Amino acid sequence: MRLDRIIQALLPHDEQFFVLFDKLTKIIVEAAETLRTLPSQGKNEREATVTKIQELENKADSITHVIYTELNKTFVTPFDREDVHLLASTLDDVVDYIDGTAKRFHMYKIKKNSADIQRLTEIIYQSALEIQRGVILIADMRRADELHSILQKINQYENDADSIFDHAIAELFEHETDAIELIKIKEVLVNLETTTDKCEDVANVLETLFIKNA
Amino acid sequence: MRLDRIIQALLPHDEQFFVLFDKLTKIIVEAAETLRTLPSQGKNEREATVTKIQELENKADSITHVIYTELNKTFVTPFDREDVHLLASTLDDVVDYIDGTAKRFHMYKIKKNSADIQRLTEIIYQSALEIQRGVILIADMRRADELHSILQKINQYENDADSIFDHAIAELFEHETDAIELIKIKEVLVNLETTTDKCEDVANVLETLFIKNA
Amino acid sequence: MRLDRIIQALLPHDEQFFVLFDKLTKIIVEAAETLRTLPSQGKNEREATVTKIQELENKADSITHVIYTELNKTFVTPFDREDVHLLASTLDDVVDYIDGTAKRFHMYKIKKNSADIQRLTEIIYQSALEIQRGVILIADMRRADELHSILQKINQYENDADSIFDHAIAELFEHETDAIELIKIKEVLVNLETTTDKCEDVANVLETLFIKNA
Repeated sequence: MRLDRIIQALLPHDEQFFVLFDKLTKIIVEAAETLRTLPSQGKNEREATVTKIQELENKADSITHVIYTELNKTFVTPFDREDVHLLASTLDDVVDYIDGTAKRFHMYKIKKNSADIQRLTEIIYQSALEIQRGVILIADMRRADELHSILQKINQYENDADSIFDHAIAELFEHETDAIELIKIKEVLVNLETTTDKCEDVANVLETLFIKNA
Repeated sequence: MRLDRIIQALLPHDEQFFVLFDKLTKIIVEAAETLRTLPSQGKNEREATVTKIQELENKADSITHVIYTELNKTFVTPFDREDVHLLASTLDDVVDYIDGTAKRFHMYKIKKNSADIQRLTEIIYQSALEIQRGVILIADMRRADELHSILQKINQYENDADSIFDHAIAELFEHETDAIELIKIKEVLVNLETTTDKCEDVANVLETLFIKNA
Repeated sequence: MRLDRIIQALLPHDEQFFVLFDKLTKIIVEAAETLRTLPSQGKNEREATVTKIQELENKADSITHVIYTELNKTFVTPFDREDVHLLASTLDDVVDYIDGTAKRFHMYKIKKNSADIQRLTEIIYQSALEIQRGVILIADMRRADELHSILQKINQYENDADSIFDHAIAELFEHETDAIELIKIKEVLVNLETTTDKCEDVANVLETLFIKNA
């Protein structure tokens, strides 16, 4: 019997969820931190970075899958089953989009590291940190004020990302005359912006959890 | 205590939902009506139009958020909680896509006002009117025949939009030789067509509500 | 009274679902089989092929709609209502994406039949066959081992499709210098790859059904 199976068997069901969600948010933070280093890297470093993010994405997939399976087997959950499912799937989406962005960055051999791209990866990293803080709080529903300020930050980050995205796209269509280059950069920008949307989705699920269980 | 809070406290819970949904559909109609004027406008008028639609989108966001919050707090709802949630989110999606279309129209400095684009905005406006009529009917489940004819119209509009979209895309790839221009117009067309898909999603939720509560 | 109405009235409710899902998966297999013939066809044959797939898509839409309606009216279902709804909608998505791929192939007058495109259509066909096998098994929950091996295959197909897609996109951006041609082929590839994602979604729903009802 593997150690994690033993721990799992000993923990009450509620604890299991918190442990799994904690693992998932750690991966999000690590993936976001890694993504942030990508734009300024040279061609040779990038391959290792993209591989690392892909491995994190695989790990996140496995954990999400365990949550789904446990959720279907376990009769007592600390929260509504659908909310736990939704929290897991939105957290998994964040990692998926970080991975998708990194993959495109590498595949399209994006040369330019614009200030806008760098700022978007920074916002994603900050959002990931807030997500980690927010998810920890679901174990203690009395800290609603703390959660409220975390959710506000995530929403603000998403708004900031929207403005940066709009600016970057306007700039791109203004100055880029090579259509294929434009397609590549646009797709990277769309993926970065969608990642912050996914972070906001997590914030919305956390809010629902708190309102229902306050 | 603000007036709307007092009204809210006095109204039975069912009424609150109807009032909020009524507000939401009024915004959809106004946004769609505004979008319809956009293609034929000159550069200077467009900015104000796009700003107006964005404000409507913000308002719709707030109302949707209030519906979600009320839904999680209120124990008695006239309908299944998930259906009310789904109705709010699909209505919100319609406004989001109208806003996304307007934004791209402006950002990409689309010059051409093709007959196809004009017809798609007209279809969206007609669908918005039917959505408004349909949502009013959820307060009175005895009017199933009336709803049925509304839903048929929305579905027909979506089919019409599909044909116009296919025609416009075929035309675009046939005649447009500037790849960047093609990318811009294609994205506006996709957003217009997706808006009618979102209207159809609303129709599907309304149908579900009626079948369950007839 | 039409014959299918009589049969429906006589069958117990559980059976109705199995009959409808069986019809739906037969359409998926036929649509996937037809899609597989498309890339190697000449211009004249293609039109008939695309029309055939569109007719299958319309049929799938009608059956899905009947499942939704029955689901809302019927009080006793063999499974959780939401799971049945989700199974129907994910199956319908598979047909939608097959249809979307075929439509683009025709509309964009794609000339090239690359080995990658051909392999992706082959993978979709194989996934469709596994989906059909898997859906039949939901009538007999004792055959979990059999289902498990089917789901593994569908997941493996999706992974294979991902690798082929990445290879095809890298190749495309490496060699295609005509931006408009690149846009067309990229969109066909994205649609093919998304079709395998939708097949994996079906596998996930089937897994949930089995875990809950084992």
